[in-house]
Amino acid sequence: MNDLKTRILGLVADDLVAIEAALAENLNPHLDLVREVAGHILFSGGKRLRPLLLLLVTRMCGYRGEDDTPFSISFEYLHAATLLHDDLIDGAELRRGRPVAHSIYGNATTVLVGDFLLARALSLAARTGKIEIIEVVAGITENMSQGEIHQLSRKGDITLTEEEYREVIHRKTAVLFEGTCRAAAYLADAPESQVEAMAAYGVNLGLAFQMADDLIDYTSDTAVLGKKAGADLREGKLTLPVIAALAAAPEHARRRMQAIILNPDFSPDDFEVLKTDLNHHGGLAYTRQCAEEHVRRAKAALEVFAPSSTTDILRDIADYTLSRKA
Amino acid sequence: MNDLKTRILGLVADDLVAIEAALAENLNPHLDLVREVAGHILFSGGKRLRPLLLLLVTRMCGYRGEDDTPFSISFEYLHAATLLHDDLIDGAELRRGRPVAHSIYGNATTVLVGDFLLARALSLAARTGKIEIIEVVAGITENMSQGEIHQLSRKGDITLTEEEYREVIHRKTAVLFEGTCRAAAYLADAPESQVEAMAAYGVNLGLAFQMADDLIDYTSDTAVLGKKAGADLREGKLTLPVIAALAAAPEHARRRMQAIILNPDFSPDDFEVLKTDLNHHGGLAYTRQCAEEHVRRAKAALEVFAPSSTTDILRDIADYTLSRKA
Repeated sequence: MNDLKTRILGLVADDLVAIEAALAENLNPHLDLVREVAGHILFSGGKRLRPLLLLLVTRMCGYRGEDDTPFSISFEYLHAATLLHDDLIDGAELRRGRPVAHSIYGNATTVLVGDFLLARALSLAARTGKIEIIEVVAGITENMSQGEIHQLSRKGDITLTEEEYREVIHRKTAVLFEGTCRAAAYLADAPESQVEAMAAYGVNLGLAFQMADDLIDYTSDTAVLGKKAGADLREGKLTLPVIAALAAAPEHARRRMQAIILNPDFSPDDFEVLKTDLNHHGGLAYTRQCAEEHVRRAKAALEVFAPSSTTDILRDIADYTLSRKA
Repeated sequence: MNDLKTRILGLVADDLVAIEAALAENLNPHLDLVREVAGHILFSGGKRLRPLLLLLVTRMCGYRGEDDTPFSISFEYLHAATLLHDDLIDGAELRRGRPVAHSIYGNATTVLVGDFLLARALSLAARTGKIEIIEVVAGITENMSQGEIHQLSRKGDITLTEEEYREVIHRKTAVLFEGTCRAAAYLADAPESQVEAMAAYGVNLGLAFQMADDLIDYTSDTAVLGKKAGADLREGKLTLPVIAALAAAPEHARRRMQAIILNPDFSPDDFEVLKTDLNHHGGLAYTRQCAEEHVRRAKAALEVFAPSSTTDILRDIADYTLSRKA
């Protein structure tokens, strides 16, 4: 665990305890099986980044009510629902070092528990009594499902452009961060300028987070990741490190990379060759630069707020997206 | 097409035209693929019963606004979303005489388009600006997913009781009809007595509808059904005709029925033997009686309203649940 993560966790320890309790209390299923499957994905070492963002942003916007903790977890339920569906869709095997839910409970139950978690997220959002918040939550799900379909429809296509990649990660990842921060500002009845600032913080944090995630797949190993290294490539997902390296590499190197990318059974040695090419042709450096730019923009968005311990933590969280290893 | 259906369709022809147009207009996907998959399930000869109910109930409760048509289709989107997920879960092959979506577009895209339709339903509900409506829509999805999980977890279990069967069909089918009628009354700002009357109409209509559906699987043939006869049994779903016949049959007949039920590869001849037993031991008659009782209760719930052409149509729709053949 790096120093930044340790510091953040120390500062939000009480919030995390409240989030864990609320996650278990608000699930409310009628069936033990639903609790078990939902629990498998919910209580497996997630970072709770989304509910934590909600608590921090509401606090920064001066919220004094008691709806923040129960509402915060609707974003973790939403996140968990998409993980259940996405792991199934990607044919993933491991998540956070444990077998994925569908390998234990079957596809059918996994799809349905995902639906249940989506619905619970919505019910919790409805409890806030704010229509603008419901619209945000519905919009998140519309975008995420379409981002995943877009990614799926371009699976294994080496002509994917950086622009299209950005559109996909915006929908599938950044919209949830943006929506969490925006909904938090709405919950606190923040003025429009603060709502837009928080939305900008969220969307840039989300883009940085996904780019860092895509980078990690080429810079960490299986033990640290909790899933197989090279999983993105194996699932036919072309991400920025590859797109940027393909665009920059000379013909012979591009052909070598393409041959590995297009081979569904690439070997560990092939993967090492590819990583060397990604590094050599600037794919890793460019992705890191882009992520850094989004971190910079996320932190700049915080400037409409007076400095406080909460703005400090939100700044630390933005920096953390780039320092994490898994 | 039977006479009752012809009469109802004549009376609601304008509503159905408005519903068809709204279904296409409000889909609003960013991707053509989403429109294609959603269109495959949405425009394949569905009865539009749920949006139609919404329009009729809002009218009966004196609604004069223009949100009814766009809002009505959120219940068709919700219904279509669950059909996409359920067909996949059941391993179904045909729906309304056409190959199911997942056999054409694959499981992954089908799951995600289902998620998208759920989210669209929610967005349309949010547009009404009424929190109590959002709560109804969220509650529908929570119940439907749990009803399906419950059914799935008891798949092929011949000890399923009538009570448990009723709990399953309540959640997986009746809650959507109940919620549609309740939300319609909320949209019209109807007094509490009318809201509860419409909820009672909806839940009883839904129970009758599902019982009739479960009956049809043993009384119609493949050509009329648009899917294979005996599909429920093949999918391990024990429904009321079977549960009631098993409970009433003497030991030797029960054993004969159980042998067929528990054989995943039962022959067409086996299926005929089973149908004879279901008939002989009262499973079909009892299911029909129960459905009739719910139709009676649905119609009784309408009595809080002054008689009108709309109450007549709602009465006809209740009767129609028992007269349909597919």
